[in-house]
Amino acid sequence: MQENQKYISVSVIKRLPRYHRYLCELLDANINRISSKELSEQMGLTASQIRQDLNNFGCFGKQGYGYDVQLLCSEINKILGLEQSYDLILIGAGNVGQALLNHTNFSRRGYRFVGIFDCNPRLIGTKIKDIEVMNISDLRDFTRCKNVDIAVLSVPSNAALEMAENVIACGVKGIWNFSNTDIDTPKDLVVENVYLMDSLMTLTYKLNENKIIEKINNK
Amino acid sequence: MQENQKYISVSVIKRLPRYHRYLCELLDANINRISSKELSEQMGLTASQIRQDLNNFGCFGKQGYGYDVQLLCSEINKILGLEQSYDLILIGAGNVGQALLNHTNFSRRGYRFVGIFDCNPRLIGTKIKDIEVMNISDLRDFTRCKNVDIAVLSVPSNAALEMAENVIACGVKGIWNFSNTDIDTPKDLVVENVYLMDSLMTLTYKLNENKIIEKINNK
Repeated sequence: MQENQKYISVSVIKRLPRYHRYLCELLDANINRISSKELSEQMGLTASQIRQDLNNFGCFGKQGYGYDVQLLCSEINKILGLEQSYDLILIGAGNVGQALLNHTNFSRRGYRFVGIFDCNPRLIGTKIKDIEVMNISDLRDFTRCKNVDIAVLSVPSNAALEMAENVIACGVKGIWNFSNTDIDTPKDLVVENVYLMDSLMTLTYKLNENKIIEKINNK
Repeated sequence: MQENQKYISVSVIKRLPRYHRYLCELLDANINRISSKELSEQMGLTASQIRQDLNNFGCFGKQGYGYDVQLLCSEINKILGLEQSYDLILIGAGNVGQALLNHTNFSRRGYRFVGIFDCNPRLIGTKIKDIEVMNISDLRDFTRCKNVDIAVLSVPSNAALEMAENVIACGVKGIWNFSNTDIDTPKDLVVENVYLMDSLMTLTYKLNENKIIEKINNK
């Protein structure tokens, strides 16, 4: 990215799927037009925040009219790269991995699993959702013949770095990481982490927050 | 929380499980002492950021010595509320729900599933990990007899709000929400969301970001 180029902040990026979600729900409810005020009330954001967020990508609302829901949804679809489909491989066919494979919403949105890899001999050769589980050692050959956009990393933390290096060496550019460990990101790789244990711990912290703050204040 | 009380920012809270994770790894590697500089290099934060974060909760480091890993780990354990165990129920025993049930790491950290609820007649009465799947209509009776700290909500989006209301009406104070929909939070409820679809869309955005930014800059 050049220095004088526009930069989109992480918090705006993180809100984009949420806009997408709300707009899809509006479309499902046959609502074709919405003011930024109404949208803001539904989403718990300010109208000015919504305008600012969307203005990063273009001018979508009309003064006195609001947003055309269909148009805005389709624009956000484009921004999120959802106009094309994506080929995914799963590395680690354990519980979480299999749950992701069986999650119907992903395929509906154009995310398609094309390969499954594991190192467990009891799994290798079996089929999950009509896809054969391959030995992790076959990954390089597989990626030579097939395009892979995203590797879903669902392996124990102690295997995560090695598997990530494998995947990167095969030229895969995106990692969806469920392994509860941090992956160093080379420049041309993007990683999105789902830290389940961190999330559960955050919930526990919140459950105890009042007690903790009280303790600190009484110190 | 009183107005003059200390307030811990969301970004600090979100980093706490990450500190916990790194400190546990250090302990596993028999490293008992670490300087804030070394810890910062490993975690990709600045030393000053680490000091600031931890100072919110007390004074843990010693000038010229650094951090006692065991002590700091145990303090963060306390802050995260991990000294006690938590009783969880699962609402929705689909793919994701069952993956969470079978995730061994949670029980190791003191998170224990005590009940499973679903509305699918084919699941009700069966056992998963030795726990009988109950009808969702039995939730109120169950919570009258058993303490439940956290409800794990793993139901389709269109059922999420009703289920959340059910759970709240039963007095459960924490919801771990996997339903990819927002839940309005009453004052005495805490919610932690894992939006899988949002996360995957964020990854797709990142994969396409350069193209998108280029397009905006050429407008």
